[in-house]
This record gives sequence, structure tokens and C-alpha cells, in this order.
Amino acid sequence: MNAIVTGLSGRNAPIHPAAPSRAEAYIAAHDFARPTLVLDLDAVERQFRALTAGLGRAHVHYAVKANPEPRIVERLVALGSGFDAASRGEIELVLSQGAHPDHVSFGNTVKRASDIAFAHQAGITLFAADAEEELDKIAAHAPGARVYIRLLVDNPDADWPLSRKFGVPADRVIPLLAHARARGLVPHGLSFHVGSQTREAWMWAGTLDRVAAVWHAARDAGFDLHLLNVGGGFPAFYGTAIDHPTAYAAAVMDLIADRFGDVAQIMAEPGRGLVAEAGAIAAEVMLVARKSDDDLHRWVYLDIGKFSGLAETIDEAIRYQFVTLRDGAPMGPCILAGPSCDSADVLYEKRPVSLPLTLAAGDKVMIRNCGAYTSSYASIGFNGFPPLDVVVLG
Amino acid sequence: MNAIVTGLSGRNAPIHPAAPSRAEAYIAAHDFARPTLVLDLDAVERQFRALTAGLGRAHVHYAVKANPEPRIVERLVALGSGFDAASRGEIELVLSQGAHPDHVSFGNTVKRASDIAFAHQAGITLFAADAEEELDKIAAHAPGARVYIRLLVDNPDADWPLSRKFGVPADRVIPLLAHARARGLVPHGLSFHVGSQTREAWMWAGTLDRVAAVWHAARDAGFDLHLLNVGGGFPAFYGTAIDHPTAYAAAVMDLIADRFGDVAQIMAEPGRGLVAEAGAIAAEVMLVARKSDDDLHRWVYLDIGKFSGLAETIDEAIRYQFVTLRDGAPMGPCILAGPSCDSADVLYEKRPVSLPLTLAAGDKVMIRNCGAYTSSYASIGFNGFPPLDVVVLG
Repeated sequence: MNAIVTGLSGRNAPIHPAAPSRAEAYIAAHDFARPTLVLDLDAVERQFRALTAGLGRAHVHYAVKANPEPRIVERLVALGSGFDAASRGEIELVLSQGAHPDHVSFGNTVKRASDIAFAHQAGITLFAADAEEELDKIAAHAPGARVYIRLLVDNPDADWPLSRKFGVPADRVIPLLAHARARGLVPHGLSFHVGSQTREAWMWAGTLDRVAAVWHAARDAGFDLHLLNVGGGFPAFYGTAIDHPTAYAAAVMDLIADRFGDVAQIMAEPGRGLVAEAGAIAAEVMLVARKSDDDLHRWVYLDIGKFSGLAETIDEAIRYQFVTLRDGAPMGPCILAGPSCDSADVLYEKRPVSLPLTLAAGDKVMIRNCGAYTSSYASIGFNGFPPLDVVVLG
Repeated sequence: MNAIVTGLSGRNAPIHPAAPSRAEAYIAAHDFARPTLVLDLDAVERQFRALTAGLGRAHVHYAVKANPEPRIVERLVALGSGFDAASRGEIELVLSQGAHPDHVSFGNTVKRASDIAFAHQAGITLFAADAEEELDKIAAHAPGARVYIRLLVDNPDADWPLSRKFGVPADRVIPLLAHARARGLVPHGLSFHVGSQTREAWMWAGTLDRVAAVWHAARDAGFDLHLLNVGGGFPAFYGTAIDHPTAYAAAVMDLIADRFGDVAQIMAEPGRGLVAEAGAIAAEVMLVARKSDDDLHRWVYLDIGKFSGLAETIDEAIRYQFVTLRDGAPMGPCILAGPSCDSADVLYEKRPVSLPLTLAAGDKVMIRNCGAYTSSYASIGFNGFPPLDVVVLG
């Protein structure tokens, strides 16, 4: 893995992204009474345009779970985006912001029967599935719907490889397509997920090989598949260089064209890759302490932790970048922890974070590229701390 | 560890607790549109009386973070309980329910300076600390306050041993007591935490030995300590037999008397041990699936997961007991997962759960003894799922 990157100056930092963003400038210029996520809608729009420029004819379905802020959805509706919804709540959200039902897919393979019925009533006609029982539920509550089968693929190259929770092995796909047809559903296509934060486009190749083999086998078996849903995996910048989103998306599309040829409809579901870099979190140091006089590591306690927005630090999976006003000073290793009375609320311990030796309680800390998977993970009030506040720059 | 326990009949289950509780009977008799925690206030009261009967002169300070339901706090105020608060939010909560400031300690060792000032204004005079910088903050914002120093002790016998996040090693305690005195604070006592879910009273012995050594050394050094805060660790029943709370608490008090002699004031901070058994969760099966025809394990997806109330399944730390209406049928091993589109939202995989082979989507599942550390951990709406609903039986 990469070295830890800190400092507004970008010392040791790769080129992309360049200068402090508008969200970061806003944080630098304001005081905050509690941890606050600042989101820049224009940055979301720029990223959408950059991704779609590379994706060409593939249609973006934003993975709403990454950040369900209504104004993000509203902006994306205006830009012509589609939406990947995980629940009735997310469907209601995107429809309330003006999304057309034709642009919404119900992408969770685990759906409550009454939520399927709700989606069907609302005009949504595209559903994910990876099990016979799920197809039976869809057939019962959304008769005649189009379904795509999620394929289980392992991608050891992703920063956050997925578990086996979603999808079926290759040899189960054709039986499921047949089951869908037998239940009066339209076996419309396949989906997969290459793994969250797949940092380089070439890492898609092995997965695409395996999906293409299933795709062609299904077509050979008489299933007239129209839709290839390539899921998410589009990366955000967390300190390791990544390609420009247009180049990355174009390279993925080239890999797809090589393997799939002329597919009628391609969908991509960026979440993190669309909104992570559009947000930054304003946080504060609560306490700096050494457990003993000869400890090499300080303990630094922030006012935000695993249960108030930084859930993706579980297993130290996502390594955020921290910026302080003292970043010119000499640095030293820190164990970083959250504010709750919970011993599990430690953010980085196996791989400490380098922070200024002069850091003290009350100091402002900015956490970069936090627009995805932060505010929505926050607990309703664990330890009496309110959820992450959100400020939207329109 | 113990065998998995399922079934209302209590087959294979140890004796304690006995029959289905009032919360469980309520769940059996009602339908729920979404995951719901049912809390029985009378069960909280019974447990409070059972614990205090064993604790004798030690005063209970309920660890509010375990379950901040206002009606639990209200009932405990009426019973004469004190409160261990983690934040300004929890202080406001307990005061709003009638707690006297003298019965509230600000027990988080990581406090926002403005929250210390708020607590001081509200009349709270007892604060925890484990670092010089924290003592400086308390001296500045709550001048003259009583402080207790948290000692870091390892207890490998707890089901959930704590990290090194809280407390200082033994050799740092006297310097911190001296630092407190030099800052005009009252060095009032010591605290420690034996580890969450310490299932048997004898497991306290080693920890108490170490704390007592520090306690006596501090008194020999001229610190007139009054308060021994023994923290939490009182267990709840999750399938492995535990002692009756009165016997457990009395045994711990005996261990304390042997080692500390005549301590002026003893505080205990049960959270889980006070409220866990007073609640049960009503959940529903969303989907049952096999990933392939020859899989031994089914995947069972519930409508509640890591991000909507069952956060303590992280690392499979707490093993809940599941009850279904089909528990008479033959059983088989299942991987249990939550409803979100998040591959990390898997509850039990390393050690599968035994559930009826006939289990199907739509079945009601009751999760026993969920009164602690569930509702407050729930996310504000990850994946568009609402937070855990709460029903209180008064």
C-alpha cells in the first residue's frame, strides 16, 4: 500500500486531485460546532461529466447509498443520471427529486416483498436478483418485470474486495435466467461488482473475462440478454494516484467492448467514484495523550469516529487523508480514535497516521474526500453524539 | 464457547433466564412493519433491584450509552439510580428525566471543552480523566471539580476485551493525581473497566488485584482517595449460563472488600448487565438462498443488520439467540446477513447459526436479549432503511 499522505501542500502526494477543493476552502474559512460534512454540488457535476465522457453510451445509475443527500440527487436528475436504489426509502427519495421511474433500478438483491410491490406501483420495471426465492417474490409483486442476475466474481485487486454476500457462481446463472422466464419475468441481463475502490482500470480485465464467458453462454442458451450492468468500483482519491475519471472509464469501456461486442444497453453504478471527492469533513481534536512517557505513539482522539461517520475505517479499509493547520511542523505517528466511550471506536492503530507533534485539543482537522459512505453510516446518536452534520454548497 | 441456542422451548439452553419474557411475548403477539426493539421497563426495574441487592452499598450509575431510551432513564431516576454520561447529549437527557446532578458523572475520558463547561454549569462535579491535557481542560472549564483517573487494565477473560483506548498504565496514575491537585482539582478516586460481558465474577480477581495495588500506592503517597469506580462488565445472557445478578454482584463486592477494605464510596456502571435482557428485537427473513446446489450453508438475509441495530456482531463479538416459529423443524447451518447493499453487512459467517431448514422469506424472527447497544448504534438511514424502531412496555 501507499505511504500516508498529509498536508495541504501535498508533500508526497500524487498529482490528482490538485488544489484544495471548494469544500476544503469552505472548511478552512468557517468554524463548526460539531463534525460537519461539506459537499460541493458543482464538484459532483464535474465528476459526473468526466465519468460520462469516458463511459460513452453506458448510462450512469448513481448508487444512492453512497450519499443520499437530496440535493445531490436533484442535481444528478438535472444531468440525466439514472439511479440504483437499495430500498423503498431510496426509491421514494429519487422520485421525490424528479427522477423518472424508467431511470431507476431496484438494485438490492435482498428486497422486502412489500417494497417490490411499492416499486412496481411506482412504475419501476428493472430489478436485481441472485436467488430463486427472490425471483419468486418479484414475479408475485412486480409481474412481468425485467430482471438482471447478479454474478459472483472475486476480485483480489480491489482495495475493498467484496464478500460472497451478493451474487451467484457462474453455473447458477442460466438456471436462474430460466427460472425468471418460467415465472413470467423478462430475463434482461447480468450484473456484477468488480469490488469497491478498484484503483486501476486493468484490474477489471479478469473479472470481465469471467462475466463475458457467462454472458455468451447465456446468449448461446437462447437468452436474448440486453443489459450489462457493470456495477460500481470506480475509485476515489485517498492518497494513492488514480487515473483521471474519463481515462479510467474509457479504458473500462474498451475492456468491455473487447469482450462483449455489441451490447444493447450498458449501465454503470458509480457511488464512491462520483461523490467521494466532492466532500470533506470538518472535525476537531478532542485530546492528545501518551499512555506512558516512553511511548512512541501518541493517541489522538477526534470528535468523529466509527459510529458518527467514519464507518469505513472498520478494519482500516479506507485510509482517509488528514489536514491540519500545523502541517508545517515536525510530524510523528499517532493512533487515531473516535470520541465515543467504545473501545472499538479506534480508527487507525495497525498503521498509525502521521500528524504534527504540536497537535492539541481544539485544533481543527480536515478529512479529505469524504463525500461517500460517511453521513449515511452515522448512528442516530450513539453516546449522545448527534449524527454528522451536512452543509451543501449549491 | 457455547453451542448455539435457539428455540422458544429453550432446548439446549441453560436455566437463566427462564421463560419467554414480556417483550418476547409481545413480539409473538404482534406484527411489525420494520425491525423493532421491544423494551420492558419492569424487566429493567427487576434487574436494577437484583443488581443493587448484590452490590450493597455500591451505587449504580447506569451507563446511558447502552440504551438512551428516555423512559428507561425516567424509571431508573425513580429507583434512585445514578448515571454515567458520555457526552453533553446524555447529560441533557438524564437531567431532562429528573436526575440530580449529584447523581451524574461525566465518565468519558475524551470530552469537548465546551461540554465540560456545560456540565459544570449544570451542577455536575465528578469527571473522568486519563491524560494531563484532559485534566487541564477540566481545570479550565470546571474549576475545583472532583476527578477520578482511569487505570488501564487488560482482562483476557472478558468476552469483549477492551482495547488500550481508555486509561493509563499503573505508573502514570500517581503523576496524574498530582497533576490534578496542582491544577486545583480534587483527586477523588480511581476507575477501571474489567471488560464488557465479563461472564463470571471470579474473572474480576486479577484486575482487582492490579487496581488495588495502585489504590494503596496512591493512598501511601498521600492521596486521600474516596471513590472506587468499578465500571461495567456485568454480563447479560446470550446463551451461556451466567450467575443470577445478585449473586454475581455480591461476589464482586466480596472480591473488592478483600482487596480494598473500607472504601468511602463505590460506584458501578452497568449498562449491558442492566438493560440487555429487558429487550428483544422483532425482525423478518428477507431471503433464504443457497449459492450453489451443493452448498452446505444457506444464506439467510434478515431485515436488520450491522448498520441498523446489530453493530455488536462486528467480528462476531456478541452472539445473539434467534427464535423462529419453525423451531420444531430440523435445523441446519446458515450464514446470517443484513439487508443492506454492503458486502460488510454479514452478521455471522465464521461461526454459522443453526436455523430451521424450512425457514423462508417473510418469516418472523425474534432476537433475544437485545436491550443494550442496539437502537443507539443504528445508522440514521444507511441504504434508505429507517433506524431501528422502539416500542416501550411501561
